[in-house]
Parts: sequence; C-alpha cells; structure tokens
Amino acid sequence: MIGAGQLARMTHQAAIALGLPLKIMAATPADSAALISPTTTIGDPHSADDLVAFAAGCDVITVDHELVNLDALTEIAATGTRVHPPAAALAFATDKAHQRSAFAASGLPLPRHRVVSNAAEARSAAEAIGWPVVVKTSRGGYDGRGVWIIDSEAALNRLLDDLGVAQSATSGSNGETPGPVLLIEELLDLDLELAVLVARRADGTYAQYPVIESIQVDGICRETIVPARITSEIEATALDVAQRAAEVVGAVGIIAVELFVAKGEITINEVATRPHNSGHWTIEGATTSQFTNHLRAVADLPLGATTALAPAVVMVNILGAEDGRDPHQYLAQALELPDVAVHLYGKGPRPGRKLGHVTVLADTVEAAREQAHRAVAHLGDPVPPRP
Amino acid sequence: MIGAGQLARMTHQAAIALGLPLKIMAATPADSAALISPTTTIGDPHSADDLVAFAAGCDVITVDHELVNLDALTEIAATGTRVHPPAAALAFATDKAHQRSAFAASGLPLPRHRVVSNAAEARSAAEAIGWPVVVKTSRGGYDGRGVWIIDSEAALNRLLDDLGVAQSATSGSNGETPGPVLLIEELLDLDLELAVLVARRADGTYAQYPVIESIQVDGICRETIVPARITSEIEATALDVAQRAAEVVGAVGIIAVELFVAKGEITINEVATRPHNSGHWTIEGATTSQFTNHLRAVADLPLGATTALAPAVVMVNILGAEDGRDPHQYLAQALELPDVAVHLYGKGPRPGRKLGHVTVLADTVEAAREQAHRAVAHLGDPVPPRP
Repeated sequence: MIGAGQLARMTHQAAIALGLPLKIMAATPADSAALISPTTTIGDPHSADDLVAFAAGCDVITVDHELVNLDALTEIAATGTRVHPPAAALAFATDKAHQRSAFAASGLPLPRHRVVSNAAEARSAAEAIGWPVVVKTSRGGYDGRGVWIIDSEAALNRLLDDLGVAQSATSGSNGETPGPVLLIEELLDLDLELAVLVARRADGTYAQYPVIESIQVDGICRETIVPARITSEIEATALDVAQRAAEVVGAVGIIAVELFVAKGEITINEVATRPHNSGHWTIEGATTSQFTNHLRAVADLPLGATTALAPAVVMVNILGAEDGRDPHQYLAQALELPDVAVHLYGKGPRPGRKLGHVTVLADTVEAAREQAHRAVAHLGDPVPPRP
Repeated sequence: MIGAGQLARMTHQAAIALGLPLKIMAATPADSAALISPTTTIGDPHSADDLVAFAAGCDVITVDHELVNLDALTEIAATGTRVHPPAAALAFATDKAHQRSAFAASGLPLPRHRVVSNAAEARSAAEAIGWPVVVKTSRGGYDGRGVWIIDSEAALNRLLDDLGVAQSATSGSNGETPGPVLLIEELLDLDLELAVLVARRADGTYAQYPVIESIQVDGICRETIVPARITSEIEATALDVAQRAAEVVGAVGIIAVELFVAKGEITINEVATRPHNSGHWTIEGATTSQFTNHLRAVADLPLGATTALAPAVVMVNILGAEDGRDPHQYLAQALELPDVAVHLYGKGPRPGRKLGHVTVLADTVEAAREQAHRAVAHLGDPVPPRP
C-alpha cells in the first residue's frame, strides 16, 4: 500500500485478520500507519524510483491516497505486478476535469459544469451557468481545499489572478507555464449529500454497501449516517449511479462515489478509488469492513457481505479542537459512554485535523448521533448542531 | 504485553484503534504477534532479567499467557509499575491446586476433588471419589495436556509412575526432587460446557459478556456458541459464579471462567486471567471486543458495552488439518461464504495446531454453525458433527 495515513493504519488492522502480509510505503516514520506496522518502507510517492523499488517486493500494489506518480504505476503494471486500482482509475480522483468528461460521456448525472483553462473561458462558463458558481481546481484539492464559491465576475477575476490562470487560450503560448485547469460548476441547493461504497474485483464482480448520508461542514466530512434518510427511489438511483460510475472508472478495491441530492435529483460530486472516510462505520457496523473488502478485492479474493449490523450506525470524525487538546488524553471521558467505539490515528493534534473517529450502533439514528456527538465533544472539535 | 501469540496479535489490532502504544515481548521473532507489531522485544518470559528490562519501558504490564515468572512480576509491581492482572491472579491459572483450594474456601461450586502429592494420597482420593477419576497436574497443562481420565487403580499406578509421583509423604524426604502435585477429581457426565468472560478494572468495576457455550473435543475448544443453549436459571447461576470467581481471583483485565454443567448443576472447570479463545466471537459479534475491553481494563479506562450484535454468533477454531495444508492457501475457498469472517494467526501449519478461527453472525445458531463449519472445512481440520 502506497501511503501510510489512517486508511493504511486501518487496512493494516484488517490485513492482520486475513493473514495477508501488508507492506506499507510511508512518507515519514511518524505517519499514522508507520507507527503500528513492522513492514514499513520510507519513500516518496512522487518518485518513480521509490515506487519501483517498493513494488519489487510486492505481488499487488494498492494505495492509501491518490497523490502518487501514476506514470510509475503504469510502468510497474507493465512489468506484470498487479496495480489495484490501476493508474487509469486513480486518474479519476486526481483529475476532476477528466472525471467530469468521462462521466458525462457515459451519460452519468453531473452538475452543470464546464472545464476551462483560461480566464476568458472561465468568465464565459460562469455567465452561461449563472452566478454564484463553484470553481474547483482540476488537480490537488481535497477536504474543501481547491474549491471556491464565487458570486461575481470581479470575485472570479481575483481568484483567477491568484491561481495564475492565463487570460486567454493564446496568452500562454509564448512559453509561459500554463495555469491550472479549472472546473466551473453550478452551485446546487443541496437537500443532502450521500456516498455509496462499492467493492469491486478485477473481474467486475462487486458488492455495494448501504447508501451513506454524509454531513459535510466546510467541505470536510463531519459525520455519516446509515441508513441515509432518503426515499427508496433516491436510494435505488444512488446505488445505480454509483455502480455505473465504478464501472466507468474501472475501479479495483473500494471506490467511494460521493453524490449530491438537490431538488430530489442525484448528481455525482466526486469519486475516490480507495477506502474512504464515509466508510469508517463499516468497521463495527457492517458484516465486512471496507478495509477488509478493499484487501479482498485487490488480492482477488471473494468479497464479504456488506450488511449493516444495527438499525442505525453513525460515524463522527474527531477533528482537532481549537484548544489543541490531544484526544489521547481524553479517552477516559469519551469511553464513559460504553457503546461508543473510538479510533485514534496516532496523529499530533492540530485544530481541524482529522485525528480519529467514533462509531455508534443503535436502534435509532437520533440515539446513535447523540452518543457519538457527546463522545466527540471530549475528544475534539464539538460537532455543530445539524438536523 | 508478555507473550506474542494470537492473543497478543489480536490485542495489537485493538490497541491500534485506541491509539494505545502496545509493546510486546515475544519469545521469538516468528511469534504470531511479532509478525505484525513494530514494537516487539525478544525475551524469555521465565527470565526475571528480561521481564524487568522489558517492564522498564512500560506504564502497565499485562500478559498473553500465564507461563511467566510470577516472582519477577511481583518484583516489578513493587517498583510501582502496574501489573494487570497481578501475579496473585495469574497464580490461579498456573496452579490448579491453588485455584481449587481458594475457590473451595470461598464456597464456589467445584467438582469433588482432592489435592494430592504422593501415590498413597492419590489412590485414597480416587477410592473416595469413585472410579473413573480425572487426574490433572496442578501446573503446566493446557488444551487437554496434563489431564487424564483413569478408570482403575492399575492405570492410576502406571500414570503415577510415568509422572514420577512419590510413593508416600515421606519417600521424597531423602533429598529426591518431589514429584508433581496432582488433582484427583470426579469425572462428570457433562450436559455441556460454558464460559463466562468478565472484564474487570482494578477498582472492581466490571462488565460481563453473555454466557458462551463452548464445545470441546479432546480438551481443545472447537467452537463457541452465543447465546448458550441453556435455561435462564443456568444462565443466571453461570453469571453469578463467574463474577464471584473473578472477585476471588482479583483479576484485572479479562478473566475467562470455564464452567461445567452436569445434571443441571454448575461447577467451575478453570479460569484464565487474560483474553481467551472462548471470547474471539466478540471481535465481530459484540459491541466491544474482549481485546478492547482487556486493554481498557488494564489501562484503567472505562469498560465498553458487551452486548451481542446478532441473535446468534458462532466462532469455530481452525485447527491444522491432517494433510498439513496451509489455511492461507485456502482463503479464497473459505471467503466464497460472504458472511464468514476469517482470522489467521500467521502460524506454520501443523496438524491440530490452532491456526486461526472464523466467526459468523446469523439469525439462528444452526445457520451460523453451518456456515462456520463449511468455511473451516476448507481451512483446517473439519469439525466433527456434534449437536
């Protein structure tokens, strides 16, 4: 597994049970997974040399994040080492313009959008879509970074200047570095956000988890709720769209398809081709966790059942509190709530940083949320009230 | 944690979630837990020097097995390092004669038994109890070793010879090494066997798991069934006896109390003062696993809820098959059963060796057993039919 964040950390827990010898390539020895795995190599995921050397000791390569040298992964796959997900699938997560174009070509429902690479195109796209618009960099953004809501041409011009976007299609032709590719999208009036996790093997067989309701604050996932509070019609559409997206992406392993619901219509927000924050509830809350199914898929083993184990399963992220507290010091307070499962990632506390999560199984969504919120108030930033 | 078997391996998985930095002292680098933990020290659990050196880096010491130098643990506790469970609690598991005597003194229900240290006493005890009798060495036996069913004085004499038991109380007084202390017990006509797991903190607060039915073959646990198929009266007595035993032992962490049920009467078989094979079902099957609650208890954190998550939870051990197959090579076949959770311990295959276990949650005990047995038939020794 390339990358040693909390996803690799939880994947190591799953690999122990299956007896699969998981090697991890970490950027630093202090990475979340490097702290708890004896088979960690230090390497730079952008370095082809580091990736090729690491892959030499592996039967199959997978990832904890997408910010990996994809050309090197393609090269590794050409030598016969399986790369799951393949570089072409990872490109959907690293390149939002590619993702939008490929999904549009497959007839998948998307917000109205245009891919632009200069200021003239951006202004024209915003006028056509109508203010306010959402502006996203095609590459490099996550957890709310690289996304702006822009309500006027003046504000758009300032952002384009800040980002170094070329003025027109020809203005960069004198040898200047071209500016970033951007997406200009409609700002949807969201009913809610959903995620669907699909575990998919190389032969196309797959298992879908129940639809997840995802509550985002400032672009960061704060909590997930299973079952999502949606109609059976929305549920069916969500599962169908996610499955079609997984096929288009050619994912192997877990793919998380994040969906918008606006005025009762589903559109695709984005995809991640790896275990995902929206699936942490599956560790305690499903027959087979997303980490176990990710390993089973990439190791070409049959997939496990994805059934939820309780009427309601709620996961709440522990984000670093403003007072800088270390959640490890507040475990006793959180664990006073006996039905709360706590996961800490071994990361240094910093306001807003994802330091862990809690999961609660209960008979009702309300009961599960209440317990989870109480626990998180001890461990990190309190969850803002939200229906 | 002293010891690096599968219990330490699964405890490491639980420690990762809690963010507790678990150090493990292994006997060899190939030990089950040493394979998957980056914080393993090699040491001899019988060596006071090794234990004291290991303990110097720890806030609290716990164990994966009882075969530890208890004098050294007492010495370590005297320096102020917490030892959970304390040496006095571990002595209940290492010394069956002590266990029987202390439980008898506390009025706990036991099989009729006598503690003997020479052949004359042994013959007299067997006559008094009535043939056949069960003979156990007080120290060193487990998984069926150190236990014999003896149906005549001639057979008893042969066993006593084999074990080097002195002929009479005085025959060893000329400086010979005294033979082993033995227990002579009645052979019960068992209805079934039960286990009760108690998680207990140093302050005496505790949480009990549901009563477990344990199916033993040749003294080795083959499967566990929750809920146990018993009356509510037996259930209440089992929980009560286990709780009183936990108090007498002074356990901190998980204590497993194994019980006999014969002619509707409960007696104590033996206790283990650590996570136990009979509690592996709790990983997937309970709100809080025995490994998590063991860590929470020894780290003096509040205990988690012990509720079962399904109407039936069955765990079946994977014992090495006669054909010497490696279960890692048969994972794909076992995982074709999507609701079976497989745990492999990374141990080399050997007939009869505990190589892993599977757990199934289902609506009925029968359905769970059937799936678990089918999976185990691929991975190891098939489970003999047993009601």
